Amino acid sequence: MNKEESNPWEKRDQEMDAIKKRMGRIKHKLAIISGKGGVGKSLVTVNLATFLAKNGKQVGIFDADLTGPCVPKMLGLKGYRLDAGPAGIGPAEGPMGIKTVSMDFLLPSDESPVIWRGPLKMGAIRQFLGEVNWGTLDYLLVDLPPGTGDESLSILQLLPEMDGVVIVTIPSEISQAVVKKAITFARKMNVPILGIVENMAGLICPHCGQMIDVFSKGGGEKVSDEMGIDLLGSIPLDPRVSTDSDIGVPFVISHPNSPAAKAFSQIANKIEERIEQ
Amino acid sequence: MNKEESNPWEKRDQEMDAIKKRMGRIKHKLAIISGKGGVGKSLVTVNLATFLAKNGKQVGIFDADLTGPCVPKMLGLKGYRLDAGPAGIGPAEGPMGIKTVSMDFLLPSDESPVIWRGPLKMGAIRQFLGEVNWGTLDYLLVDLPPGTGDESLSILQLLPEMDGVVIVTIPSEISQAVVKKAITFARKMNVPILGIVENMAGLICPHCGQMIDVFSKGGGEKVSDEMGIDLLGSIPLDPRVSTDSDIGVPFVISHPNSPAAKAFSQIANKIEERIEQ
Repeated sequence: MNKEESNPWEKRDQEMDAIKKRMGRIKHKLAIISGKGGVGKSLVTVNLATFLAKNGKQVGIFDADLTGPCVPKMLGLKGYRLDAGPAGIGPAEGPMGIKTVSMDFLLPSDESPVIWRGPLKMGAIRQFLGEVNWGTLDYLLVDLPPGTGDESLSILQLLPEMDGVVIVTIPSEISQAVVKKAITFARKMNVPILGIVENMAGLICPHCGQMIDVFSKGGGEKVSDEMGIDLLGSIPLDPRVSTDSDIGVPFVISHPNSPAAKAFSQIANKIEERIEQ
Repeated sequence: MNKEESNPWEKRDQEMDAIKKRMGRIKHKLAIISGKGGVGKSLVTVNLATFLAKNGKQVGIFDADLTGPCVPKMLGLKGYRLDAGPAGIGPAEGPMGIKTVSMDFLLPSDESPVIWRGPLKMGAIRQFLGEVNWGTLDYLLVDLPPGTGDESLSILQLLPEMDGVVIVTIPSEISQAVVKKAITFARKMNVPILGIVENMAGLICPHCGQMIDVFSKGGGEKVSDEMGIDLLGSIPLDPRVSTDSDIGVPFVISHPNSPAAKAFSQIANKIEERIEQ
């Protein structure tokens, strides 16, 4: 290493030390991943966080999806601006006291895309992870970018002591192909896989009550069998879930008796059990 | 620039010349983009290509989605391996003679994720664009990675003379926020925006025939009004669309009389008119 380069490396080391210190106060760290976007990764993150918070846990969410961060909208935190003080960056507080940090809080307007080159992006994430004052948490849920690209890779490398990942998919065959990639990705990274959540698994017609398999059927079970990964459960499609996300209330709060919320509670219970045993 | 760096730059120039030469034989270049994944970008690409091919055009698809390339599966080309000869890399031929190249063709198995660091990825894309022997084409459709990150940016920079982009979204408010980012992205890149396609816009229950707004309602129209972008049309959800994708036949071929295919034909007609006028 020559002289000119020593400064950036020193800075990097300081950032890594800061991350280690912050993360040391967090009991369990989970990542939510998916092979492709649009399968409900943020929805699972937000509702899992809400479920854990309802169970009396201190919960934080790090929305690391740089391209289309959705968590703030889903938690009614849209438009929040982060405050920085001597103790670090203070996270936003969502429903049930969920501490939330999202790249969305740094963007000037809804219309602004984050067109950052890779190294800049990772710098922002390192800084974030090192400077956010989460305090003491039972759970930190990391909503990773969709897919298994280098962003997800870099973030997982920054957080080496993950308790596990939850993989979200939908029932169609096309999604199965990409979810297999996500499983291989997690295995290569040596992160324990807690299981698969199958989202958008059938829709009960609100008019006639019959079942419609909108995105095919059985994909989650098939992948689970083929790859030897536990299927944690299937969440049916429910138009109210989309509306709840739009108004910023997690559906496990607003529709706790819906089939979707009931399915979700079973999934969340399994995850909690597995981590705390 | 010092001496050691001159070789890579020379290689880069050669690659850029090769891309220019190959692209010179293509009449129209379109990119299909989305603010977030899972909204049906590949579905729109594949069916638009099929529609244009049915109209007698020579069509190619470049599936530039590196993390979860879906186009081969949707065209029944899964498992195809690319051939290289003196004239370059020969694309696969899908239904209606659609010439197809996808990152998926380079992966060893379904389970392998592409965990490439940014620069490596862009190198692969430059090489691809320079070496694929598309021949003479009326249309090349580029299925960009979801979101407005640096991958999409770099690919658009490699293909500067785009006829335009088509933006795909779904009706929910959450998707509107990210589609605005995609619009701003295209505007910053100075690429003409041909319009918005709203996918998954309502589902007709196959049992009772009534309409279900699965992912809220009216998002496409709202974004269109607010951002001054034309709404090209709305494609209803149809479980057969998912099944068709799984078996590798575009739904404009297998279900040409479905409401989804009819909506799609109107959209494709508008796009073709706008480009050729």
